[in-house]
Amino acid sequence: MTFDFAPLFPAGLPGPSAKWAGAQKFNFTGGNNDPDQVPVEGLTAASNAVLQREGRTLATYGLASGPQGYRPLREFLAAKLKSDAGISCTFDDILIVSGSLQALDLVNGVLLARGDTVIIEQETYQGALTRLARLGVNAVGIPLDGEGMRMDALASALADLKRRNIRPKYIYTIPTVQNPTGTIMGEGRRRELLKLSEEYGVPVFEDDCYADLIWDGKRPPALYAMSKTGGVIHIGSFSKSIAPALRVGYIVAGWDVLSRMLAMKIDAGSGALEQMVLAEYCAPHFTTHVPKLRRGLHGKLETLMEALNEQFGTAAEFDDPKGGIFLWVKLPDSVDTLKLYQSAIAAGVAINPGPEWSTNPSHSRSRLRLCFASPSKEEIRQGVATLAEVCRKEFGVPARIANVERATS
Amino acid sequence: MTFDFAPLFPAGLPGPSAKWAGAQKFNFTGGNNDPDQVPVEGLTAASNAVLQREGRTLATYGLASGPQGYRPLREFLAAKLKSDAGISCTFDDILIVSGSLQALDLVNGVLLARGDTVIIEQETYQGALTRLARLGVNAVGIPLDGEGMRMDALASALADLKRRNIRPKYIYTIPTVQNPTGTIMGEGRRRELLKLSEEYGVPVFEDDCYADLIWDGKRPPALYAMSKTGGVIHIGSFSKSIAPALRVGYIVAGWDVLSRMLAMKIDAGSGALEQMVLAEYCAPHFTTHVPKLRRGLHGKLETLMEALNEQFGTAAEFDDPKGGIFLWVKLPDSVDTLKLYQSAIAAGVAINPGPEWSTNPSHSRSRLRLCFASPSKEEIRQGVATLAEVCRKEFGVPARIANVERATS
Repeated sequence: MTFDFAPLFPAGLPGPSAKWAGAQKFNFTGGNNDPDQVPVEGLTAASNAVLQREGRTLATYGLASGPQGYRPLREFLAAKLKSDAGISCTFDDILIVSGSLQALDLVNGVLLARGDTVIIEQETYQGALTRLARLGVNAVGIPLDGEGMRMDALASALADLKRRNIRPKYIYTIPTVQNPTGTIMGEGRRRELLKLSEEYGVPVFEDDCYADLIWDGKRPPALYAMSKTGGVIHIGSFSKSIAPALRVGYIVAGWDVLSRMLAMKIDAGSGALEQMVLAEYCAPHFTTHVPKLRRGLHGKLETLMEALNEQFGTAAEFDDPKGGIFLWVKLPDSVDTLKLYQSAIAAGVAINPGPEWSTNPSHSRSRLRLCFASPSKEEIRQGVATLAEVCRKEFGVPARIANVERATS
Repeated sequence: MTFDFAPLFPAGLPGPSAKWAGAQKFNFTGGNNDPDQVPVEGLTAASNAVLQREGRTLATYGLASGPQGYRPLREFLAAKLKSDAGISCTFDDILIVSGSLQALDLVNGVLLARGDTVIIEQETYQGALTRLARLGVNAVGIPLDGEGMRMDALASALADLKRRNIRPKYIYTIPTVQNPTGTIMGEGRRRELLKLSEEYGVPVFEDDCYADLIWDGKRPPALYAMSKTGGVIHIGSFSKSIAPALRVGYIVAGWDVLSRMLAMKIDAGSGALEQMVLAEYCAPHFTTHVPKLRRGLHGKLETLMEALNEQFGTAAEFDDPKGGIFLWVKLPDSVDTLKLYQSAIAAGVAINPGPEWSTNPSHSRSRLRLCFASPSKEEIRQGVATLAEVCRKEFGVPARIANVERATS
């Protein structure tokens, strides 16, 4: 092996990936879900039924449904989006994609050029931030409160950009179970957001991929449903409600934008078997599966919060999230979670350090995201105990091992 | 709906897609396969077995296999590539991707920048040409003969580029069942190609996605296997051997390039269920399924060649391809296949006009690609008869309806 590829790499190519070394013993990262909650029997039965009935169609790209995706899946989604999110659309307004990450790529692909500006939530999904950085797009972060993006701050940012003759390409929001803070934007604030969007001519990019996982099952209507102008692009996924390794997401948008995204989607269609199995499974089972999944996840969240209280005491601050699979935790200012991440990995605990999930690394310096869906309750307890030990050794936080203190108090 | 997205689209955005209007009655386009040959029973059994055994792992991105893809599938591929193509590699040298189109995107992603130059076969895969055009990359086409890329022409092109201080980023070739000409590059010519590649420091990008479909099952070793320097990137797919709607392909490359592609692959993994089902099915059944598929395809090719002889007589010239799913046909110079395409569509016959598969539109002006795997034998006969009628009306070719002439001769 003597051929040297390095001189052929273009400028700005991301550095190489490290070889995968296996998962950490205690993994609190990523959008992984609960293995006990994968509906294995249901998916098996669905796979049997749909393969027997329609397996021959796998010989054709896009099956018999064309490039927008398997029609029964789009029909299921149109019905679900109507009943859950108040969205009136037909299967024709939906584009099935390979996970919501491809949705991000397609929305970015049709709207963004190097040097553009977008508005996003100050704490937000790392995958969105990484993509914007690679595209050379300027991301203006808007601070959050207990209801998500703050409208006073959004109004100021839009006005400020307008003064500088900058028209942002979109306002990216995760309004329903915000990632990583777990908040839900109320209907009133959604109305304000749409008003600002229309006033400034900046579309809303609504990422709703956690919306199925609200503890009480009740959600405000989607921004897409509330908009009277069509200035919203809505995306979602089956990763959180069924299984993340199935790479199936979707985009709902007007044909003016959807037709452009379709022209950019030159992948000969998303995986057909996964679409077929999901449609076959979800049409009869989604509404019974998801509440069961939510109950299981909520139980794990309670275990995580208990473990944090026990191990970190008052050193770990967090708000009880309204749903989802993650908890956003604030440690004392002395803790640098990028450093904590390194030491924790060495001890077998994987966490998401706050600065990777924020446009304002100083604000999130001592914050971290803990995903609780994948580890068992016992792993959650042990993992948090290990994390507390690592954190105490490195930062003196918590001051002493809280559970010992409590046990003797 | 009043929001106007158009002013937000960046310069150079591809035009919108038309809404899908359903498949043509006689479809001779695309890499579609024979619906009768999809191994539905085998895939169903595989899906049952693997879901029951490992369905829980769908809760984790990348299953338990990490970001390079499902390990049993990579192990199957390492064994298959060894026995079929002479490639010595392990599962660690393979990256599973979402169809070979994602492989094209990743190879392009790590090597190409706007303004770069690559070398390709003069007649080649349309999806490769489209991608290069969108990336703003200059594609230098090398003329073909009955054994694929002509080495004298390649040597001249490389020398000419070198004189102009241009180092092409790769030489893209489909050496084994060339698309669209159906030729196979012999071992001697492969050696010459590798020699030129090394001499000029230009890597080879080997697209082997039709290599399973050689009529006699015998193929020369892959360029990747023959290279002594590691200057080859090899890609392949299950689209042609199992089913195109399953979006599973793969890349074999040294870690210096593979680690860069992995860093560019920010899609959270390719569809896991399709990988699992393919691994479970292929490990025991691939070597019996593929010869059966080949026999079926060869039968359809014979029907297509007979129908062309019958309907077009000497007006349709073609070489008997060595394998694959398409036939590259030359009509008389007076026929413009871009125009023929339009009239044929109106008559319910879809063809691939030659200029879309070539860097030299004048050379391919009267050529067309006919894919024969998807239509039935009866549809092939009727479709070719309809095409001949359309062609005669528009171009006076064939001069008279050949089968009538023959019937009376």
